[in-house]
Amino acid sequence: MTYLSIDAARLLERLSVLGNTGRDASGTLTRLAASSEDKLGRDLLVSWLRSAGLSVTVDGIGNIFGIWGDIQSNQPLMIGSHIDTVINAGILDGCYGVLSALSVIEALQGSGKRPARPIVLAAFTNEEGVRYQPDMMGSLVFAGGYSIRPAMYFELHIEQGPILEAGDCTIGVVEDLQGISWQRVTIEGVANHAGTTPMAMRRDAGLAAARVITFLRDEIAATPPTVATVGSIKFQPDAINIIPSRAVLTVDLRDPDEQRLVAAEQHLTQFVKQLGQQENVEIRLERIVRLEPVAFDRDLVGLIERAADARGFKSRRMTSGAGHDAQMIARVCPAAMIFVPSRGGISHNPMEHTDEADLVAGANVLLDVVAGLSS
Amino acid sequence: MTYLSIDAARLLERLSVLGNTGRDASGTLTRLAASSEDKLGRDLLVSWLRSAGLSVTVDGIGNIFGIWGDIQSNQPLMIGSHIDTVINAGILDGCYGVLSALSVIEALQGSGKRPARPIVLAAFTNEEGVRYQPDMMGSLVFAGGYSIRPAMYFELHIEQGPILEAGDCTIGVVEDLQGISWQRVTIEGVANHAGTTPMAMRRDAGLAAARVITFLRDEIAATPPTVATVGSIKFQPDAINIIPSRAVLTVDLRDPDEQRLVAAEQHLTQFVKQLGQQENVEIRLERIVRLEPVAFDRDLVGLIERAADARGFKSRRMTSGAGHDAQMIARVCPAAMIFVPSRGGISHNPMEHTDEADLVAGANVLLDVVAGLSS
Repeated sequence: MTYLSIDAARLLERLSVLGNTGRDASGTLTRLAASSEDKLGRDLLVSWLRSAGLSVTVDGIGNIFGIWGDIQSNQPLMIGSHIDTVINAGILDGCYGVLSALSVIEALQGSGKRPARPIVLAAFTNEEGVRYQPDMMGSLVFAGGYSIRPAMYFELHIEQGPILEAGDCTIGVVEDLQGISWQRVTIEGVANHAGTTPMAMRRDAGLAAARVITFLRDEIAATPPTVATVGSIKFQPDAINIIPSRAVLTVDLRDPDEQRLVAAEQHLTQFVKQLGQQENVEIRLERIVRLEPVAFDRDLVGLIERAADARGFKSRRMTSGAGHDAQMIARVCPAAMIFVPSRGGISHNPMEHTDEADLVAGANVLLDVVAGLSS
Repeated sequence: MTYLSIDAARLLERLSVLGNTGRDASGTLTRLAASSEDKLGRDLLVSWLRSAGLSVTVDGIGNIFGIWGDIQSNQPLMIGSHIDTVINAGILDGCYGVLSALSVIEALQGSGKRPARPIVLAAFTNEEGVRYQPDMMGSLVFAGGYSIRPAMYFELHIEQGPILEAGDCTIGVVEDLQGISWQRVTIEGVANHAGTTPMAMRRDAGLAAARVITFLRDEIAATPPTVATVGSIKFQPDAINIIPSRAVLTVDLRDPDEQRLVAAEQHLTQFVKQLGQQENVEIRLERIVRLEPVAFDRDLVGLIERAADARGFKSRRMTSGAGHDAQMIARVCPAAMIFVPSRGGISHNPMEHTDEADLVAGANVLLDVVAGLSS
């Protein structure tokens, strides 16, 4: 059997060009959704889609679709990801999946065969959710009332974690995706003088916040696969010699098992109740985002695994730790994801890196799967 | 023996008027040093000093002095405090001492006797140190190169702690003042994805910050009289789904015993060294402010105690938990302080309150001490 291949040089060149779009004078790349930098990136993508002869449509939330074929006559196969970034980002997160999708379409176009099933490239709006919550906003809205009715969906993405690198694997066959629970914890104590208030009489919102953080690490996330993160915290009045009257922090809890995620949430709820009494503070938990774990389509997962095997790439089945647009699209059609390794597991950071050979390998696996399904 | 008395109604009225100066439309009182609100308060004070026939001078750092008598011929007795406030303040902290000093001078003036020793009212600049550090700035500068050479110094102040209230005392005879150590702790970790980074591979600056806070509470300040406070904290990048790459927090350590304060600082230094290895983060401690404990003048302390006894006020000897201008002036002349109770120990807060009878009692004790020393 002979394989088609994506144009590796072109994929890498476009990753670099898009990765320099929205980069500021100090060299920092930030394309927050709905910013003027994001618009530059979006316009660039649309120009590439048009050059490839795709019909471009943009829906109400700003999701960009590049359509090849007649989607009225047959449900399309959809492939994509997102191109918005976090603050001070790397160039691969999301962009790799969108530009690989374009490379896959171009490779199929180059083969001279028109696919039996139309193919739609999707770039979903505001996957990161940095500036406006929730994240995965565009794909969530799309799944809620889709203008294009996909038959199936694939997303190629960097792993953003250390598992593939640790196992010396090229391809991650993503079977499922962790459930995500985001909560805001607001702690109300009493502002008082740092020098004159005996420790036993304090109602210190900041101390209670610290106890939440250490509890999450030492109790909730003591054993894998549960992970817990406090990424944001604010004290009031935030002065060196005043006991904090208020602390607001965020909790990001994730687990691939829904039962365990619920148990972790309940454990946290019990803990803060107890902590409130112990530290004489009021503690309020508010849910910001809650996504159940997602199991991807078994048949599509199997296709990805076999495509990787056929190319001789070492692969492993795995759980996605991050949220992705694929989990939203999985609500409306069979979906699956392909991962490639992230060096050092680093992402959401300018150090984000995947070896070029792995980037090309992932795009070719996507091509093989798409080619097989659309021929 | 008959006593002079301060004009209680006038003192309370002035506390109220000054307390409404710089109060915004929402009812919040904030007169940060060197703000336009502070200027309003300062101008008001100066107008009152002039009305009392005092000669007003302002030194280079903005300390306001109201002078009664000829300070060229004889070293003055100095009494005072400060009128700058924290953010969202009560009306008593500092202002009570300055306005009581004015009441004391007016009572002595009203007695018809010219004091043997000139009396200087002092309102020191930026005692709070909210906007610009260090705190006690004006008195520190004054003590470094004083334009007026005081013979002795008294400061009347609210306790800002719960001790007098708990002991049902009216007067606190302040023998000494805690040493203060302020440090900034900067923790450098690695920003990474909250969902994909296993707990064991994290370099979480925020978690390390929380461990510093709980260590201070559970180890350093586990037993009185040492107190430890983390009043300010910042995470970077401060996003819900990103492990903090950096945390900056402040540590306020206080102890009346210098040896114990040094030991607490050393214990913290050892802990962060260990913690840095354990959590795989870099931790840097920087000293911001360091003040040794201050012992006030034994003779002046005795005078205050006897004056309280003579009036029949229940008193107790105590340590000041807060820093005060008196500790700076104690570097250049004998000094002592008088405290009155703070309801609930609350200060640096709009709830700050002292019963009017206690406010008047404190001012009369100050009057008696000053009258005795200047007659």
